[in-house]
Amino acid sequence: MKMVDVGAKAKTERVAIAEGKVWMSPRALERIRTGTVEKGDVIAAARLAGIRAAKRAPDIIPLCHPIGLAGVELDASLEEGGVALRARVKTVDRTGVEMEALAAVAAAALTVYDMLKSVDRGMRIDGVQLVHKSGGRSGTWHRDGQTADLIRADRRKSKPGVRAKSREER
Amino acid sequence: MKMVDVGAKAKTERVAIAEGKVWMSPRALERIRTGTVEKGDVIAAARLAGIRAAKRAPDIIPLCHPIGLAGVELDASLEEGGVALRARVKTVDRTGVEMEALAAVAAAALTVYDMLKSVDRGMRIDGVQLVHKSGGRSGTWHRDGQTADLIRADRRKSKPGVRAKSREER
Amino acid sequence: MKMVDVGAKAKTERVAIAEGKVWMSPRALERIRTGTVEKGDVIAAARLAGIRAAKRAPDIIPLCHPIGLAGVELDASLEEGGVALRARVKTVDRTGVEMEALAAVAAAALTVYDMLKSVDRGMRIDGVQLVHKSGGRSGTWHRDGQTADLIRADRRKSKPGVRAKSREER
Amino acid sequence: MKMVDVGAKAKTERVAIAEGKVWMSPRALERIRTGTVEKGDVIAAARLAGIRAAKRAPDIIPLCHPIGLAGVELDASLEEGGVALRARVKTVDRTGVEMEALAAVAAAALTVYDMLKSVDRGMRIDGVQLVHKSGGRSGTWHRDGQTADLIRADRRKSKPGVRAKSREER
Amino acid sequence: MKMVDVGAKAKTERVAIAEGKVWMSPRALERIRTGTVEKGDVIAAARLAGIRAAKRAPDIIPLCHPIGLAGVELDASLEEGGVALRARVKTVDRTGVEMEALAAVAAAALTVYDMLKSVDRGMRIDGVQLVHKSGGRSGTWHRDGQTADLIRADRRKSKPGVRAKSREER
Amino acid sequence: MKMVDVGAKAKTERVAIAEGKVWMSPRALERIRTGTVEKGDVIAAARLAGIRAAKRAPDIIPLCHPIGLAGVELDASLEEGGVALRARVKTVDRTGVEMEALAAVAAAALTVYDMLKSVDRGMRIDGVQLVHKSGGRSGTWHRDGQTADLIRADRRKSKPGVRAKSREER
Repeated sequence: MKMVDVGAKAKTERVAIAEGKVWMSPRALERIRTGTVEKGDVIAAARLAGIRAAKRAPDIIPLCHPIGLAGVELDASLEEGGVALRARVKTVDRTGVEMEALAAVAAAALTVYDMLKSVDRGMRIDGVQLVHKSGGRSGTWHRDGQTADLIRADRRKSKPGVRAKSREER
Repeated sequence: MKMVDVGAKAKTERVAIAEGKVWMSPRALERIRTGTVEKGDVIAAARLAGIRAAKRAPDIIPLCHPIGLAGVELDASLEEGGVALRARVKTVDRTGVEMEALAAVAAAALTVYDMLKSVDRGMRIDGVQLVHKSGGRSGTWHRDGQTADLIRADRRKSKPGVRAKSREER
Repeated sequence: MKMVDVGAKAKTERVAIAEGKVWMSPRALERIRTGTVEKGDVIAAARLAGIRAAKRAPDIIPLCHPIGLAGVELDASLEEGGVALRARVKTVDRTGVEMEALAAVAAAALTVYDMLKSVDRGMRIDGVQLVHKSGGRSGTWHRDGQTADLIRADRRKSKPGVRAKSREER
Repeated sequence: MKMVDVGAKAKTERVAIAEGKVWMSPRALERIRTGTVEKGDVIAAARLAGIRAAKRAPDIIPLCHPIGLAGVELDASLEEGGVALRARVKTVDRTGVEMEALAAVAAAALTVYDMLKSVDRGMRIDGVQLVHKSGGRSGTWHRDGQTADLIRADRRKSKPGVRAKSREER
Repeated sequence: MKMVDVGAKAKTERVAIAEGKVWMSPRALERIRTGTVEKGDVIAAARLAGIRAAKRAPDIIPLCHPIGLAGVELDASLEEGGVALRARVKTVDRTGVEMEALAAVAAAALTVYDMLKSVDRGMRIDGVQLVHKSGGRSGTWHRDGQTADLIRADRRKSKPGVRAKSREER
Repeated sequence: MKMVDVGAKAKTERVAIAEGKVWMSPRALERIRTGTVEKGDVIAAARLAGIRAAKRAPDIIPLCHPIGLAGVELDASLEEGGVALRARVKTVDRTGVEMEALAAVAAAALTVYDMLKSVDRGMRIDGVQLVHKSGGRSGTWHRDGQTADLIRADRRKSKPGVRAKSREER
């Protein structure tokens, strides 16, 4: 078990974007829309929880490097079926911020769940994944639309959850 | 915004079980199977990260109550398509431990991602959800198939973001 | 140095209310009113930061007991001269929650400062104080209005900041 | 809600100094002077709590950047009416340390309160404010004496707590 | 990997006492005695760090239960060869506080090291061990003097550090 | 009390290695060897706890600087009498990582204790010490073998635990 040595890597600008979604009942979604959630403002709470989790990623994830962060943005938007979350994290350091972006999305999603669980216990967090990263030795990576289409096709044909192939595997 | 007052609730035994899955490429899964992940033992790291996150739930989730925990178990098993995670949390307190169980699964999933991201950036965390809770005023709750069917119906009618079907829905 | 032994005290309901104010320029206050603060929603951020700090009081304050909290409310309202903060914390435990309420107000005030500091570096946090506590061996305590009047009188006479006398000193 | 992007800023030396005061009864102050506080050494505890809070500022304040700190000093001195606190924080990074200095003062003040609250519940934390910052794009800023005098004058005339005008507003 | 279920245990008073020692050069010890350590008051810092670590034990030790603490005392005394540390922790809960007491001693010892490391890098932390625990199903346990004598005898015979046998092994 | 100013130091590669040992009964050691510890995999848990503690050193140790870490390795091996721990921490920053390495060893040792305490309460943590550091103004430092021999000799003669003299003292 080790936190890999990144001492020889260059300090460069690195960005990561992750996304995820909390699926919920129409009733729960309506509560957010109408601002009638007993615990308060769901979207504001989710965004702050996400930004905080980006800062705490090395504390939540055992082998994640502690680094300084240059900026974090967390968008939460209501769409059909639930709340879509998207985090963008930037650093100028020796290692990437994929985990920070993913941790931000996960914490924001948990917060949405927490604030609405008295209305709908059946909510589900899905599709927490990296959509973009740039900077660093491995360069830029995108989860592309075509791949996403393939996933859907695959799913229709047979089994659930065939994963998006990363660019480097194709 | 408030952390709701649970002072009048009784201190009773409460249990929550949550689950989730990290979908990954066969190559990444093979690495876990063969114990050839550079960062070390993925399953052990995921389990410990999950247990720790259960304890830190009130720190990760803004309006979650700080309570004592009686026990936490985190199972991680390799199955087709990735790693399945399942957390069971128990308390004897005034409020339930749904968030603790969900936070445990989320942190374990993030840890799996972190340890394998150099092999597969396209991994995806899906189906993070409560499967059971018992104890407390609202009694016992199970995620059942029928409810899941309703969600599916709603989804079929319209939109993007087709989610991975969970095993119990098939 | 010690964290005093409260093992022999009874577990009873205890409440504490604290308050404080962030004084700021009309320009900064206007920004909150018009929702034009670059970093986002000041009031929502302050409230969440305050609630979280209540939970983290034993971590911020060296000899403060770690206890479970039954509920936390944090109100932030715009008034002449700045933002008034008020925290109400409740527990059912062996020790009071004065520090939790005060920590909540302090963290909320720091958050207000942080979000507006690019507009007004001269803001000041004043009057962070307990206004009420009930429960426990020492019973109920109120900071009363008459005392507050005396403070103002004192200030007029001589120097700023003569403190509110507690009930037991009069 | 976002943690603003400072990635394009230069890493330069930045210093911030903040101050604050805990007003208390002569009886409470005497306890510190005579070293007869049950919980232990108030000044040592306050200083350590303050230094620690400077390190934890990004954890206490939601949108505060996590950065490395080069040094922290926390002075606590007994003066008429209570304990005066002053924190000096230094970094060599892309963003200033105003929040770290203010958080240090606030945590030190809360610690003073905690250690003496059994003697005087009526203590009050006042005047937590920035007194100096240097480094960074916005240059050097001082809260000046003349302004402080104006505050006192203002207070005498009418109501307490009229805020110090920052240099840029005059 | 699991945090064992203590839900069926009774909430009873439990106490644990642990000790340890930081061995150091006469020069380093003299610095503490004369109060000439650049970083400040070593004993006060060690005591506070120890008390805080008792509260944070579940965060430092992966499978340690998060519980409320009734009281913590941390003594640090100068004796021949270095600084002796002793922590006493008390709770009224379902599980013991051995880990809290040991974590307190360890953190206090690390703090002593940190404050003196510019004077003596060769310091060593030894004998961090439980000396007493009471309460709970397993009752009272003492590390006794005779055992300690045996350790010394063992060491003389052969190799350093043969461990103290616990009562139950004899 | 102050966190000393390192702002004028150069950012250079710095490494520290620390070690320690948990002495235990043959019975406890056998449990690890046979993988029959109820709480789970002792070595994996100890390693992860150690790596995490390296990241949290500034939080555990009051005057320790918060810095980024380039890499952390934690080895735990079974040897006669117990578990030997060794941490190697690397940074590229303005201050060394001795405290990070020592904190890693201490937390790993506490974790070993926690996982086996139901089998052997008499375990003891010994010899937590720095064995190597390089980088920075003070250059390279080694704890050498000869000194270690002297310690053993000293112990045989009189009392346990005479400390290793650092190179600069001889």
